[in-house]
Order: sequence, then structure tokens, then C-alpha cells
Amino acid sequence: MKIGMIGYAFMGAAHSNAWRTAGRFFDLPATPELAVVCGRSADKVAAAAAKYGWESSETDWRAVIDRPDVEVIDICTPGDSHAEIAIAALAAGKHVLCEKPLANTVEEASRMVSAAASASGRSMVMFNYRRVPALALARQLIAAGRIGTVRQVRAQYLQDWLVDPDFPLTWRLDAASAGSGALGDLGAHSIDMAQFLTGQRISAVGGMLETFVDSRPKLDGSGRGPVTVDDAALFTARFDGGAIGVFEATRFATGRKNAMRIEVSGSLGTLSYDQESMNELRFYDGAEDPLTAGFRRILVTEPTHPYMDAWWPPGHIIGYEHTFVHQVRDFVTGVVEGTELSPSFEEGLQVQRVLDAVQQGISLRGV
Amino acid sequence: MKIGMIGYAFMGAAHSNAWRTAGRFFDLPATPELAVVCGRSADKVAAAAAKYGWESSETDWRAVIDRPDVEVIDICTPGDSHAEIAIAALAAGKHVLCEKPLANTVEEASRMVSAAASASGRSMVMFNYRRVPALALARQLIAAGRIGTVRQVRAQYLQDWLVDPDFPLTWRLDAASAGSGALGDLGAHSIDMAQFLTGQRISAVGGMLETFVDSRPKLDGSGRGPVTVDDAALFTARFDGGAIGVFEATRFATGRKNAMRIEVSGSLGTLSYDQESMNELRFYDGAEDPLTAGFRRILVTEPTHPYMDAWWPPGHIIGYEHTFVHQVRDFVTGVVEGTELSPSFEEGLQVQRVLDAVQQGISLRGV
Amino acid sequence: MKIGMIGYAFMGAAHSNAWRTAGRFFDLPATPELAVVCGRSADKVAAAAAKYGWESSETDWRAVIDRPDVEVIDICTPGDSHAEIAIAALAAGKHVLCEKPLANTVEEASRMVSAAASASGRSMVMFNYRRVPALALARQLIAAGRIGTVRQVRAQYLQDWLVDPDFPLTWRLDAASAGSGALGDLGAHSIDMAQFLTGQRISAVGGMLETFVDSRPKLDGSGRGPVTVDDAALFTARFDGGAIGVFEATRFATGRKNAMRIEVSGSLGTLSYDQESMNELRFYDGAEDPLTAGFRRILVTEPTHPYMDAWWPPGHIIGYEHTFVHQVRDFVTGVVEGTELSPSFEEGLQVQRVLDAVQQGISLRGV
Amino acid sequence: MKIGMIGYAFMGAAHSNAWRTAGRFFDLPATPELAVVCGRSADKVAAAAAKYGWESSETDWRAVIDRPDVEVIDICTPGDSHAEIAIAALAAGKHVLCEKPLANTVEEASRMVSAAASASGRSMVMFNYRRVPALALARQLIAAGRIGTVRQVRAQYLQDWLVDPDFPLTWRLDAASAGSGALGDLGAHSIDMAQFLTGQRISAVGGMLETFVDSRPKLDGSGRGPVTVDDAALFTARFDGGAIGVFEATRFATGRKNAMRIEVSGSLGTLSYDQESMNELRFYDGAEDPLTAGFRRILVTEPTHPYMDAWWPPGHIIGYEHTFVHQVRDFVTGVVEGTELSPSFEEGLQVQRVLDAVQQGISLRGV
Repeated sequence: MKIGMIGYAFMGAAHSNAWRTAGRFFDLPATPELAVVCGRSADKVAAAAAKYGWESSETDWRAVIDRPDVEVIDICTPGDSHAEIAIAALAAGKHVLCEKPLANTVEEASRMVSAAASASGRSMVMFNYRRVPALALARQLIAAGRIGTVRQVRAQYLQDWLVDPDFPLTWRLDAASAGSGALGDLGAHSIDMAQFLTGQRISAVGGMLETFVDSRPKLDGSGRGPVTVDDAALFTARFDGGAIGVFEATRFATGRKNAMRIEVSGSLGTLSYDQESMNELRFYDGAEDPLTAGFRRILVTEPTHPYMDAWWPPGHIIGYEHTFVHQVRDFVTGVVEGTELSPSFEEGLQVQRVLDAVQQGISLRGV
Repeated sequence: MKIGMIGYAFMGAAHSNAWRTAGRFFDLPATPELAVVCGRSADKVAAAAAKYGWESSETDWRAVIDRPDVEVIDICTPGDSHAEIAIAALAAGKHVLCEKPLANTVEEASRMVSAAASASGRSMVMFNYRRVPALALARQLIAAGRIGTVRQVRAQYLQDWLVDPDFPLTWRLDAASAGSGALGDLGAHSIDMAQFLTGQRISAVGGMLETFVDSRPKLDGSGRGPVTVDDAALFTARFDGGAIGVFEATRFATGRKNAMRIEVSGSLGTLSYDQESMNELRFYDGAEDPLTAGFRRILVTEPTHPYMDAWWPPGHIIGYEHTFVHQVRDFVTGVVEGTELSPSFEEGLQVQRVLDAVQQGISLRGV
Repeated sequence: MKIGMIGYAFMGAAHSNAWRTAGRFFDLPATPELAVVCGRSADKVAAAAAKYGWESSETDWRAVIDRPDVEVIDICTPGDSHAEIAIAALAAGKHVLCEKPLANTVEEASRMVSAAASASGRSMVMFNYRRVPALALARQLIAAGRIGTVRQVRAQYLQDWLVDPDFPLTWRLDAASAGSGALGDLGAHSIDMAQFLTGQRISAVGGMLETFVDSRPKLDGSGRGPVTVDDAALFTARFDGGAIGVFEATRFATGRKNAMRIEVSGSLGTLSYDQESMNELRFYDGAEDPLTAGFRRILVTEPTHPYMDAWWPPGHIIGYEHTFVHQVRDFVTGVVEGTELSPSFEEGLQVQRVLDAVQQGISLRGV
Repeated sequence: MKIGMIGYAFMGAAHSNAWRTAGRFFDLPATPELAVVCGRSADKVAAAAAKYGWESSETDWRAVIDRPDVEVIDICTPGDSHAEIAIAALAAGKHVLCEKPLANTVEEASRMVSAAASASGRSMVMFNYRRVPALALARQLIAAGRIGTVRQVRAQYLQDWLVDPDFPLTWRLDAASAGSGALGDLGAHSIDMAQFLTGQRISAVGGMLETFVDSRPKLDGSGRGPVTVDDAALFTARFDGGAIGVFEATRFATGRKNAMRIEVSGSLGTLSYDQESMNELRFYDGAEDPLTAGFRRILVTEPTHPYMDAWWPPGHIIGYEHTFVHQVRDFVTGVVEGTELSPSFEEGLQVQRVLDAVQQGISLRGV
């Protein structure tokens, strides 16, 4: 199964490793081949190809799609190019794996869903945290009724890399490229995860955005330019199954490095997770005698835990890039065996709708 | 200094212990005398007086206020009676210590503030968590600039005692007595704490309330009656100093017993706290070299920590009721020495205004 | 029940509080009266009496024992005087509560056991940590077979107050007064706790002592004097029921303030405890499916937990001095109702024998 | 740089991944080629070669050594074959990377040291935990004096995979193959780590071994056979620089899966680590004001942390197999650039001497 990857920055390194490694630990029904990687600078992308193990490189993504031997297009570019690339790839009969968020607007995402619906190729959006074993286990436990009726979600995605007011104005701080800031980059993960874990969809939101530092040094050294995305986004939500939730996404939580945290409470129990300790899941089982009930730290390294039979003995933990390896495993298996690929573009569109509603904001009430 | 206490339930036990104990560990400028405790049932209040060490008991709170030897009225009743008792006590020249929230409505709270302003006696509302050494230390560190400009507050007050749908319909679930549910009982603490720690006031809010179980068994056994308060309250907020915050108060967080949590992030650091581990404060100091920076677990038991020189050697922790002992220490000291008593009724009114704005709600935006 | 307390320093404050408070929260079959406190300096002991609520003070402990109205002698002095006072008190028909370790030598402790055996009064040695609710719960769970056959004990008692080489030469650093250093002060608690939890007795030990700082400033300012006790003690042990254990007691564990930690592993589970978080017990239940098994953090604040029905609602924690309150409750109840008082002097002697064997040391093997 | 790997079980998977991956993330001065893997079963080793990406397979390790193109011999076999293979490989001019413990006896290890001393090839023993970034950071901090004079080590290596008495009799439970049990498998890591971190060598020990379950089902189904190694090992130690330490290695700590824990206390601070949370290092800096001092949780994912600039942004953690990747990086770099390779065979021999002294045991003293 020949892969063409568009984009090769931070996500490119993680994706390359996943394509290279998945078959070394999992039994895959097809062997991914790292056929071609694509980037704008010929030199840089050639260097990336050598470093990451791609057979060739390209500077025009259309040329990658035009290659008849390439079966899969893996999109790792900024959000503003997702729709164009994905729609072209689907039109060419390729399978598409697209980084999150699906697009920068609901309109783009809707077109991608339409394209996917009528395509011969399969498609999937990458919310890699669904492939964290601890979170896949949480989903299993909720689906099995272990926490009863889901009542409340508390989700935080806390980072701090913008605390320094002189951190430069990268594409992630430009609305035209990134769509939004913490909301789309971080909040999108929380939204997808909340919906994935609870099996409920967010039906209404009320939120607000804040940009604490409104100008930053431009990358070309020509002074400061405006930050056009949010630094932090806060919102409350109702789910269609009766749950309620509270969400925070921020790049200003000093000292929190990658704290994608989510806690789901139900009538019978609670599950709690923090990405900074990604091999652990906290579980309170309300069915236990209060004499010995308590939040358990499940070290998610047992062979019966999702994905973990492929790795090491109990107690030996895995890391961030393993989520991408698991994603490749599920994608390749789904494509070859014709089973469901999730999250679908339709699920990605739903996340986009929530992001859009949050961005439109609400009127706060004065005290 | 003779004390008269109105009400003697859960809070009565904690207050009695505080009046008895404060002078045994702190050097007080006056010795509290447990003169009289007041309750509706003559038998029960007499038993409480014996148990808790009060010299006498009464069934009419007006009789307590009428006693010329009683200097201080300590109000531990449900919120709907606070205004009447406090205003009468102030009119009689007594000092007043009133449980939180100050009242059930903004109107009542406003009248209390007016009464306090023109009274000869001193007054104070009891947000006892201000007297947790770890939180008093957090306030010191923020005031000293250790976390820089305050940017974000994340506050949760999580309990789970209503998860059982057959938990009975106590006065706390009746709007007429309690005003509101989780919002006023728990959220009030979070609001006061957020304002205390940041030194900023909440200026606007957007929130929502939810009642998951809308009827419960009546205490008299005559079937089920309606729950007229919220089980959970979620809201986002803006502060007048530029910070933003997200709040959750709930009695449905299965497994969370008394998790009054608050985290404050600033441009230079973050402080984090959980009442279930009340002797600990987490502090991330952004001024440190990233090589060794990390959230510190400060065990707040050193003699230089607030209130702790009165207790045990380092590492020997204190418990919940100590917050009331500290409150008595500060109240007695403030009354005798004429120094500021905080939180004032005016601060209590501000909390009431926030609660009121949250209760009025917002229109969520559909997804 | 009139109490006479000999000694009034750190332990005196804790004991006084316990005698005053136990009846306010627990239903006791007799009411302790703080009759007389005894110390060497007339002025200081009078001040302590006023501060802590004792009716009178004395400078001669024999005078306290001579008082016919005093029923209970509470011994809080350094270890070298325990035997003389306790034996005299027992001879006078008093009940005796004696601080740990029971004595400074096996010989003294043996005489105390003999005196107790033939006395009309009851006796008990104070290992107050047995009255931590979390540890009492641990004992219950082990006795109920929840961790199966007990296999291993890992016990640490870590403090750091001697790290500063200029910390002064108090009586605790003088072998004549204190018997030993970290070993008897801290290790004695670990030994008693290990035996209490497992229900097994230590039958053999191999250990070593170390004094890192061998001279310190004398209290009278006359230069430095020799430290004649250990700063740290390490030993391994065999128990008579087949378990094995490893112990560390130290005053040099920088940053550890009062970390009395103990972990007991059995064939079916493990229990783990740290005094710095004394309201928590960790429990791994090996009977659970590995899918959801994990160390639970039991917040030991439920009404069904030992001692906790007397205190606050779930999630509201207690502190260090509560262990003494519980001890008074158990002592008074045991004396009045004639039930077993534990730990007995005989149990205290067994601890002394272990301490003695550790102090005699072993020959290490060179590498 | 062509690699030949002898053995391909658990360690083989980890080593293969390391050889494949190191050059994808680190800039190596030579590119490892996975030339040949060797095992006893031709079919199984061929399958392993395909799975793990080796170019060829062999069943005779001597044939691997005989290949002139193979530069490096990577030894992953049980301990009883280490000496023979390593000495032959060194005699053939190969570089040798040998799994821990270096050998099963001091005699074997001594011969390996002699062979290494006179060889043209370089050699290194694999104590992979030295390549955990958090532990490499701990070493840096201790070497820089951040905890002052090292005083105490407390080391535990806790697993629980033998708790089930019907767990089968694998080679690890056979003294002839494995040398010892928990002691050599787990304790060897703790000993190496303690010496690595402190910069001191263990000079004397006193310890004891225990086998809780003395027979287990044989792998061939022919009933039960004797367990000839220890299930648990406990010992105390003196270091040549004045520190003391206490060690526990066990396979019976129910619920502890891979808890290689080590805590080092010095006159100015303490460092604490647990392999189950391998991206975290706890640091207490005694130079701080006690007002804000506390154990910091350093999330060891910053680009300035050892090895971490090759991986992901801050807060994105790594896993167990990364330690082997780091080892390959250091080995290849050291071989090509001629710099020191550590731990050396001589360091491996020192560990073996400590293991030997522990195994000889001490006489405990009866209580």
C-alpha cells in the first residue's frame, strides 16, 4: 500500500514514524510503503524524505495525487488547504487520511463530506487521541455501562507555549491559515474526545474567546504583526443525550505543557484522564462498597488493554507517537478489510460545527 | 467575649469547635465564651449545648440578641433567615459572623450591607476556605507577583451526594430555603475564592444550570416532591482586571467528595489547589530554568506558612475544622484590634450578584 | 475521670487537645477532666496549664501520682523516665497511658510489663498512628483477607530536620535521654505499624545505623557536643508468619517532612500509605479483572471508615491531632468498659526488642 | 555499520526497533544496518527477521561472528551465554553491546572484562535505564551539586508477575540460565542506577533472599519443577563515598508492574523517580525558601532535557523502547567518534560483585 504524504513538519515526523513502524508491531493486512512526501521547498522536502525514510519527494501535491501507484494520501498541511487536497485526492480515487481539524470552515468541511460520500476511496480524519489506549479503554467502559448514564463532561486542553509575548507569529496564529487558535488546534481534540467517549453529540454551546497578546514578532523580522486567532477559548455545552459539559482550550496555562484532560461523570462512576500521563486512566466505580471505593489509577499496559498486546510487558509505557502508529493500524486494516473508519469526515464536520458555534460567541450577562 | 450562635447543625459543630479551640492554639486578644446556642427544638438544642460546650440554649433567636452580655452573633442557619437575623443583630449593636452565602437574594444581601455600614458592631461573612493555609499562601504569592499578571482561573467544586435519585428532599434542595443548589452552596465558595485569590472581581458571566433528578423522596415520607434548585451549574466569566475564568459546581460528580479545586494561571506561573488534599499547594514558577521547572507540591505545614506556627511540626497536617478555628482567630483579633474583617458583607453581596447573574442564564447557540 | 499528665512539650499540646476534645465528638463512657499537668519549671508548667486548659500544675511527678482523685497518668516525658514513672503510677493503682517507645532499653520495658501485669490499673502504650483511620482501615482489610497471604512489608519513616549541621543538640540527640535516634523515634512507629497491620511479629533483623553529623551546637551555647544517637537506621526483617520486610528510618531525607510510609503486599493485593497524605489509603485489589485493576485512592472520610462517623461529611479531611483524640476515645472506652487496650506494654516491649536487635547490628559483607 | 543480533525475544524486539529507529530521530555518525539476527530455531528466527526488519537470519551465533561485514554483535541471550559469545566476538574484533546483567558469575564477568581490555573492538553493557531522560537528568543534577553531598539511596524494583503460583517455570526461574531471580534481573538495574546517579560505588552489603513459591509448572507440561532463584531480594548497603542505601527487588509486589523506583537524598535536596511514570522526575531543592519549597514534578520533555530535542514538543511523552533508541545513539556515536562507552564491562563486573555479595547473605539477628 503506497502512501503519499503532503506536508512534513511536526506532524510529518509523527506520521512517517507511524507508517514505518506499524507493521513491525502489529499484523497488518497490507504493508505501507513510504512512496512519496511532498513539500514546498525542494531541498527541505528531499532532506525530510531521506531523514524519515520516504522513497521520493515532490513539491507539487497534485503530482502526488497523479501518481497511479499511490493509494493513500496523508494530509498534514495547515487547515486552509485540507479541503482542496482531500477533494482532489478523493476525486482521483485515493484513500484519504486528513489531519484535524477537518477544515477551517463549516463550508469547506461540508464539501469534503460530500466528496467523501461519493468517492470510491475511503476517508478518515485524524483525531489521534482516540488511539490512546487509556482513552480507547475509557470508551469501552462507558459503552459497557460502567459509569451508568453520562451526566457531565469536564474537558481542558492546557498548553503554555504562548505565554512569552515575544513568541513569534507562526501560521498557527494567523486566522487565514489556521482558522482559529487554541479553539481549533486544541479545543477540536476535546470536542471530538467528549463526543467519542460519551457517544453523545454536542447540540448547543455558549462560549467566549480571548486573545491576551494581540501582536507578536513576525517571522521575517519586519516588526510585529497582529495575532488574529484566540489564545484561549472557554465554553459550556449541552449534549443531545442529556449530558452537559464545560470546556477550556488555552495556550496560556503556564506550566501545563500538553494537558489534554477529560473527565466524564455518570450515575455510576467517573473516568478521568490527563494526556501528560497518557498511560494512566482514573476510574471511580460507584458500584463498589464506599469502604473501599476510590479512584483507581489503571496503568493501561496490560495485554487486554486496547492496542497494548503489540507492545511491551505490563508496566512498560508507550509514548505520544504510538497514537499515530495505532491510527495507521486501524486505517490500513479498515481500508483493506472494508470495515468502518472512524472518525469519519462527517464526524469531523460535526466538530467543525461546534467550533463554529463557539466562535460566534454569546452575550455574557453583566454582574 | 460572649458568643451567641443561631443554628447548630453541621456548621454548628464546626463553629462550636472553633470557638472552644482557637484560644488553645492561638494567642487571642479576648477569650471567646460559648454563652448561648439557639435552635427551634428545645430538647435538641439543649442536647447540642451539652455536647458542644455551650453554657445555655434558647429557642428564639431574638432572645439571644436581646441578651446584653452577648457580644457576637454567629449565624449558621439556612440562607433565607440570614438577612433578618443579621440586621436585627446589627441593630442591637452586636458583632455578626454570618455563614455563606450572605443571603438568598441580591435584595436581601443589599439590605445587610446597608445595615452593616451603619452599625456600631463589626460584621464578616464566612467563606471559611479563605482560612485554608494553602489558599492563604496562594493569595500571598499572587499578591507578591509570583505568577505575574493573572490570566485564567479554572474552578471546580465537585461533590457527589445527590447521585442517588432517592437521596431525600432536604432543605438544601428547596429554593425557598436555600436560594439555589450547587450554585449557591458550592459555586459561592468558588466565586469568592477566585476573587480573593486574583484580587479581581467578576464583571460578566454566561452560564447554565441543570437539575438531573427533578423529584426526590420527601423527609416526612409522603411521597416525592419537586427539587427546585440546580444539581449543577456551569459558567464562564470575565474579571474586571482582564482575567477570564471557567466554573463548575456540581453535586453529581460521582467519586468526588469535596473537590473544591481552583487553578490560577498568570504570565509567570500557576497555582493549583484541591480541597481533598487541603494541606498541599501546587506551584509552577515560570521564572525557573525549564531544565528543572515543574509543579511543586508545597506541603503547607511550615511555621512560616499562614496560621501554621500555631499547630504541629512540618509534615503534620491539619483538617477541615481548622479553617473555622482560623476564622475565629481572625474575627476575634479583628474585632478587638479594630482591623479589617474580610470577607465583608459587601464582598458577600458581590458574590450574590454573580450568583444572580448566573441564575438568570444565557441563550446557548445551537450547533 | 481525672487525668494527670507528666510532660507538656510537643506531645503535651497534642495530648491536652485530645483530652479536651474527645468527648465533644465521640460518646465517651466517662468525661476526662484535665486535672493536673506536671513539668520541671513551675512558671512554664503553670503557663502550659493555662494555655492547654489544665486545672492545676505540679513540678513533682510523684505529687501527681499521690493525688487520690487522679485516675489516669499520661506520660509524655523523654524515654529515660518512662519506666520509673509508669511503675510508680501502676503501683499506686493508676491507669497509665505511656508515650512511645515504651522505654529506652529492653530491661526497662520488661520491668514495665511486669508491673503492668500485676497492677490493678490498666495500661497502654501510645503508638498514635494505629488510630489513623486509613491505617485502621488497612488493618481491617488485611484481617479480612483482602490482600491474601501477607508477603512483604516496605516501611519508610522519612524526616529531614537534621539536615542542617547546625541544628542544635537537643535531648533527642542524646543517647542517655532518648535511647536511640531515628531508630527509636521513627523506626519504632514503623515496627509497631508493620506488626499491627500484618498481625505478624518480627522474628529476626539485620540492620545498620549511621550518624552523618557527629557533633552539633550545644543548647547552652558552649560549643559543640557529640551526637550519640543514629541519624538513620536501615534494616531488613523476617516475620514469624513468613513475611519479609525492609525498613528505613531517617532524619536526613531532605524534603520529606513526616513521611511515615508503609506498603504491605500480599498474594491478593497491596495496601500503601503515606502519613503526609494521612486521609488516603491506596489499595490494589488483585481479585479485580486486570482490565480495570489499579491502585485506588481511598479517601478515608466515609462514615463507615474507622472513627470517621464522629467527624465531617465525606471528603472533609482530618489532621494529625485527631489520632490522639481517637486514642483517648479508645483508652477511656477500654478502661471504663474493661475491654482490651492495645497496644499493650507487652507489645511495646516486643518493639523494644526489635529496636535492640537492630542496634546490635550485623556484619556487612564487603563487595 | 552492520549489526548482528544474538537472541530475539522480548529484548530482541526492543533492540531491533532501536537499531531501525535511532537514525530517524537522531543524527548518527553511521547508519546501523540490520544485517543478521540469530536464534536457535530456524523457522522462528526467520519469522523474527521478517517481522523486525533484519536482512537475514542464522541459527549459529558463531556464524554471525564469522561474518567479516558484521561490525557489531548485540547480545540479547540469557546470562549464561553472555561470556562465551562476548569473548568470541571481541576476539574476532567486533564491537559488543551486551544485555545486563553482564554475566551470571563474577568469574565470567571478570573474563569478559579481560577480553574487553585487550580487544580492538569497543564494548558496553546495557543498563538501558541510564538512557531514560529523567534519570540522565537526575545524574546531571547530582553531578552539578544540586542535592549537595549524597547521603541516602532508597531503591525499589517492584514487579508482580510471579504472584500467581501457577505461573510457569521459565528460564528466568532457573539458576543455571539466569544466575539469580529478582536480584539479577531487577536488582542489577537498581544497583547500576544507584552507582550511576551517586557517582559512588557500593562497598559493602547485607541482605537476604526469599523464594515464596518454590515449585512451578514446567513448560513441557510434565508436572512441577523447583524454582532455583529468589523471588525477592532485600539488602542494605554502604557506598565508598559515605552514602548508605536500602534496596528491594521483587516479583511479588502485587499491583506494581514495573516500578523501578529510586530516590537519592543529599544535604541540599532529593531526587525521586518511578519507572511507571518515566517522563517525570521529582526534585526537592533544599536551597529554596521553605515558604515555596516542595517536590517538583519535572515533566522531562523539554528540548534541553537529555535526548529530548530529538522527539516531540514539550508535554509529549516517550515510552519504554525509547531507552534502547537512546542507547543505540550513544553506542554508535561512541564507537565512531572514539568517546567513552558507559556502562563499561568493568562497571558491569562491579554490579556482578555486588550481586554476588548479596547472594552470599548475612546472618540475621534473632529478636
